Amino acid sequence: MSITRELKCYMDLIDDYLKTSMDHKNSYQKKIYEAMEYSLFTGGKRLRPIIALKAYEIFDANLEKILPFAAAIEMIHTYSLIHDDLPSMDDDDFRRGKPTNHKVFGEAMAILTGDGLLNLAFETMLNYTINNSHSIDEYKCYVRAMEEISIYSGTNGMIGGQVLDVLGGFENMDELKLIYMYRTKTAGLIQASLVSGAIIGGANDEYIEKLRKFGLNLGLAYQIKDDILDYAEDESINKMTYLKYFDLNTCKEEVEILSKKAMDILDSFNGIDIDFFKDLTKFLINRNE
Amino acid sequence: MSITRELKCYMDLIDDYLKTSMDHKNSYQKKIYEAMEYSLFTGGKRLRPIIALKAYEIFDANLEKILPFAAAIEMIHTYSLIHDDLPSMDDDDFRRGKPTNHKVFGEAMAILTGDGLLNLAFETMLNYTINNSHSIDEYKCYVRAMEEISIYSGTNGMIGGQVLDVLGGFENMDELKLIYMYRTKTAGLIQASLVSGAIIGGANDEYIEKLRKFGLNLGLAYQIKDDILDYAEDESINKMTYLKYFDLNTCKEEVEILSKKAMDILDSFNGIDIDFFKDLTKFLINRNE
Repeated sequence: MSITRELKCYMDLIDDYLKTSMDHKNSYQKKIYEAMEYSLFTGGKRLRPIIALKAYEIFDANLEKILPFAAAIEMIHTYSLIHDDLPSMDDDDFRRGKPTNHKVFGEAMAILTGDGLLNLAFETMLNYTINNSHSIDEYKCYVRAMEEISIYSGTNGMIGGQVLDVLGGFENMDELKLIYMYRTKTAGLIQASLVSGAIIGGANDEYIEKLRKFGLNLGLAYQIKDDILDYAEDESINKMTYLKYFDLNTCKEEVEILSKKAMDILDSFNGIDIDFFKDLTKFLINRNE
Repeated sequence: MSITRELKCYMDLIDDYLKTSMDHKNSYQKKIYEAMEYSLFTGGKRLRPIIALKAYEIFDANLEKILPFAAAIEMIHTYSLIHDDLPSMDDDDFRRGKPTNHKVFGEAMAILTGDGLLNLAFETMLNYTINNSHSIDEYKCYVRAMEEISIYSGTNGMIGGQVLDVLGGFENMDELKLIYMYRTKTAGLIQASLVSGAIIGGANDEYIEKLRKFGLNLGLAYQIKDDILDYAEDESINKMTYLKYFDLNTCKEEVEILSKKAMDILDSFNGIDIDFFKDLTKFLINRNE
């Protein structure tokens, strides 16, 4: 199966699960669920939850267990986009070709919709955990996975990175800060997906840490590749990117170095089928849009 | 010990714990922690975490276990106030006599500060759970408590109530909606505090459900009492309150009925020392400010 077709199959699995998570108890909640669904189903690539599923699948075949956690990561990713797009943040009117959440539902609702998705992420994982843990080991796995996700999405993770972005401005930014931002804002949720997938799949610590490191390299390579694509589209782009500090060739080299590191980690998975992540790395690094 | 003095002792316990939760890993996170601390330590009464501690104490004396959960509830309460005060929501410049978070740190930071506190609430509880569960029963308690908190704070709880408030306006509001708003926005986190305290304290389901019901009655009585106090201060107040639907006497009667119900539930705790909650109910219902 080609990687694009494989990605599509996993996407459908995740979309189906996300739809079942959108259950509301009474008519008073109709509007917030409508607003959450609007942003959850606007053509996201589901990259993070797919990564969680595939990381899980390295160690266990029964995908049911990982779905609530993968869905939660997508909810967290979506809430962060809704809040990032707000007028006081990036002030974006469109995302993926459609009006942003606050353009459709208003600013107050967009804030609450983001809050709602972040909260629902934990609610979904906790509800699954309480109803599906039959041994102390199961509890341990699920709680550990939730804790990893909460750290990567929190003030020492994604939110921390977003704060730098907001406060940064060009004058306050430097290379180290930019890399910290990429680690937390981009690589973090990819790492959260890999690590939570591996933990719930029953991986041992050695493999969990390998995947964590792989995720960091992949995430950084992915982000710098993104910068290169943005630059190719518009050289005068007025955004803080890697290209503000390095020339195009250095950036391309950096992507190569990072993806080589990512691939080397995958090569160390002796005898374990890790081809999907090799294909994914090549796919993300060689993409043209 | 008088109830005000007792409340002060518990407040100090919670404040100390909250301070230790404000640990950040590196200098890049300084600003968000500063903004979170600003709102966490602006003279809040700590009503909800105190209720969690006291509910826990009915069943177990070692308060250490309940502190992370009580602190998390206070973080959730604080984040909701920060977001409620935003220009696109209630647009408040002051809270407890001090400039609101967005007045000091700007709107973008205030949104992220709220996000950060909500996330940190779960991070704090999950971290405690993973490090302090030695049996399946402990995991079960902590996860069940977290799930209760997540439901009361979520789209079917506090956020759901806030959505009604935002969308409501006078024309779209009715008595039933108003009561739903009071249940979710005010009573909800009080119930979450009681229920999580009882669960972690090891209460059986009968007592957990009694405390849940007590919390609903106390929360509603507290909110209507609030409406009466607001009205006493300014009769022309242009806010959606119970007094828009009922006259002053009916409101006062309603507070009496609800607090009577709350007291009756407490009376059914045969032989268990529940005096604090009796005193608290009287204190909240008879307060003049």
